[in-house]
Amino acid sequence: MASSERAQILAEFLGTGTLVATVVGSGIMAQNLAGGNVAVALLGNTIPTGAILFVLITMLGPISGAHFNPVVSLAFFIKKALPARKLFPFILAQIIGGILGCLLANFMFELDMVQISQKIRTGPAQWISEITATIGLLLTIFVCLRSKPSAIPAAVGLYITAAYWFTSSTSFANPAVAISRIFSNTFAGIRPEDAGFFIIAQVIGMGLALIIAKYLLEEER
Amino acid sequence: MASSERAQILAEFLGTGTLVATVVGSGIMAQNLAGGNVAVALLGNTIPTGAILFVLITMLGPISGAHFNPVVSLAFFIKKALPARKLFPFILAQIIGGILGCLLANFMFELDMVQISQKIRTGPAQWISEITATIGLLLTIFVCLRSKPSAIPAAVGLYITAAYWFTSSTSFANPAVAISRIFSNTFAGIRPEDAGFFIIAQVIGMGLALIIAKYLLEEER
Amino acid sequence: MASSERAQILAEFLGTGTLVATVVGSGIMAQNLAGGNVAVALLGNTIPTGAILFVLITMLGPISGAHFNPVVSLAFFIKKALPARKLFPFILAQIIGGILGCLLANFMFELDMVQISQKIRTGPAQWISEITATIGLLLTIFVCLRSKPSAIPAAVGLYITAAYWFTSSTSFANPAVAISRIFSNTFAGIRPEDAGFFIIAQVIGMGLALIIAKYLLEEER
Amino acid sequence: MASSERAQILAEFLGTGTLVATVVGSGIMAQNLAGGNVAVALLGNTIPTGAILFVLITMLGPISGAHFNPVVSLAFFIKKALPARKLFPFILAQIIGGILGCLLANFMFELDMVQISQKIRTGPAQWISEITATIGLLLTIFVCLRSKPSAIPAAVGLYITAAYWFTSSTSFANPAVAISRIFSNTFAGIRPEDAGFFIIAQVIGMGLALIIAKYLLEEER
Repeated sequence: MASSERAQILAEFLGTGTLVATVVGSGIMAQNLAGGNVAVALLGNTIPTGAILFVLITMLGPISGAHFNPVVSLAFFIKKALPARKLFPFILAQIIGGILGCLLANFMFELDMVQISQKIRTGPAQWISEITATIGLLLTIFVCLRSKPSAIPAAVGLYITAAYWFTSSTSFANPAVAISRIFSNTFAGIRPEDAGFFIIAQVIGMGLALIIAKYLLEEER
Repeated sequence: MASSERAQILAEFLGTGTLVATVVGSGIMAQNLAGGNVAVALLGNTIPTGAILFVLITMLGPISGAHFNPVVSLAFFIKKALPARKLFPFILAQIIGGILGCLLANFMFELDMVQISQKIRTGPAQWISEITATIGLLLTIFVCLRSKPSAIPAAVGLYITAAYWFTSSTSFANPAVAISRIFSNTFAGIRPEDAGFFIIAQVIGMGLALIIAKYLLEEER
Repeated sequence: MASSERAQILAEFLGTGTLVATVVGSGIMAQNLAGGNVAVALLGNTIPTGAILFVLITMLGPISGAHFNPVVSLAFFIKKALPARKLFPFILAQIIGGILGCLLANFMFELDMVQISQKIRTGPAQWISEITATIGLLLTIFVCLRSKPSAIPAAVGLYITAAYWFTSSTSFANPAVAISRIFSNTFAGIRPEDAGFFIIAQVIGMGLALIIAKYLLEEER
Repeated sequence: MASSERAQILAEFLGTGTLVATVVGSGIMAQNLAGGNVAVALLGNTIPTGAILFVLITMLGPISGAHFNPVVSLAFFIKKALPARKLFPFILAQIIGGILGCLLANFMFELDMVQISQKIRTGPAQWISEITATIGLLLTIFVCLRSKPSAIPAAVGLYITAAYWFTSSTSFANPAVAISRIFSNTFAGIRPEDAGFFIIAQVIGMGLALIIAKYLLEEER
């Protein structure tokens, strides 16, 4: 299944959009219905997110690789598995797709389509959480690519299912998602001034993951 | 495994009936037990629905294709993958099966077997939700058919698991299900006057999905 | 992997014992912790049961067929897929294993090891539930055996996950399990006088499933 | 994929660390958010643990075998499937990795990094639970290795998902995890004086599992 660059960019756009619509939409639904029990709300946010990741990576992986995540695209570029000319269009498609997915979620739940989150997500505990979460996500992808590529859709979906709960930041681990979630002042939102630090942590996590992967996979250097 | 048309229609009848019995029955069970925490009730409605979809598509897919959904059958017909003579019997089997599944669920929970829902599900947010949900469902099916057909049972089950939560309509995405759910005045019900708009939205979603699939899969036109 | 009859009977004994220990044990745990929210308790009972079924059928299927259920063994016997000499030992191993699994669960939760349930489970709605649940379980097994045998562990686990919620009886669908659950006066229990009717319903369901399977699979008669 | 001993030990270290970080971290998150409904908290602890086990065993299995558990390594050693020279380094990597994973979880949730649990987990019911849980875990691994090795990541993940609920100890079944959980005075913790008895029970469970496996698999002795 050889896809043109246009189809690949469309896949990254649709995939990231659907991912963010799921994270934000299920967050709103869960918050609306959970009656204040935040653990129940987080279950209602986690299960749909893990589920949609399996679906999106299964269907769109053969088209674009199903990155949906600028640090994943950047890591593939660093490992010379994504040509430079595709890097910027991929990242742009991810960010624009993600933001539109967020606005769509707002609309589907009768909220103002464009809003700016005031949800505080900051501090060393959350930054270390984002570094940890991103290391884990990148290792899941790059180690499974060697160990068992066919399991990547399930592995990534289940990794994020777990990482929602074992980090205090609920594991964004994705700059496009961090930017998109600025635009919903709900359960899943993040303040603009906090998103930047999350993205820095994610880039650091990506770098560390590539180093750990070298030792784990004993790649030629 | 070559099945006769009679066996195929029986599969569509049983499959759609079981699907609707699960959606409606688990909705009643969840509502009865959740003590007013609607997010918990929705989890108890979502998990069984996603689970039964995996089961039904796995077992009945090789017999009839496991559509269980008039807009899916219609889309296969449009793509010349379902002959015209089967289209009407399939849709009829789905609708009759679905309604009987709903009545069975009512009976199993000691409710009046035939009842008419008064549950309001209307407005642009819900209609856009149904369009979105149906686009996603049809793309899941038609893109996975190219990307990874063996994953369709899991992909459809998990797509619906997610779509219950990321749309405000809880993703009917199926005219036979919309019609059937008129007949249960419970958690999963829908008013007759609202079902028609849902079906219109679902048909629109199907059309849009076929257009998007053409770009994504770069099919010859 | 050719197993002796002794190993097969041991597999049925251990498998049914573990299944019942999971149903009863997770029922006690869930009831103890759920603080009166019965839907949460049922989630805590459903998810472990579906999970252990996948595990047990995956590991023990190649040894004994992983019936763990007298009506399943009886159906294989009727279809001439289980020799007469194995039928009685299989059923005995299932019942004894199940009862011991129940006593073990009681012990692990510091309850009297032997107790008789007073939980009422009766009436036409529950009996029709058991007939329905058993038809579905048997069809899942016998249709998947033709459609996709490798998916049976996941299909049975997920079928029971769904059936806990879409029937008012929470889907025993298994005479060995019905008998075993007499011996725990907890969330998962059933009164002795009610278990007999459940078993009759399960046998009826098995018979109906075999008839429906004939039409669906168009087997030679 | 032939890995050096160094890469194998790194895999055991990272895998056990991530496993414990998930158990402890999701326990803290769940406890913080569940508002006193302990069953909801346990769901929020169970689902991430089962999920991460699938991920870790899928990705690291081809490197080190993905034991993450001293009694698993010991059992492979007894069955002459792990050379003596690797046994001690594996166990050490598991324990050190687990403890660091616990400290990381404490840090990510803004707790004192090093703390000693005061959570009481003792008594015959819990010890029998640990013996039972370990028998089940070891049988899952060793029987699936013969029945269906490719299903081990899912089988182990789902086994632990079930065992959290059907034992009163929530199934540690792992000495490295028992030791590590001493260092978090939270939902998932265990008092130092109780951990020793858990480990004894786990070793007994391992021995019993190897005996049962001989009969079930009819291995040459």
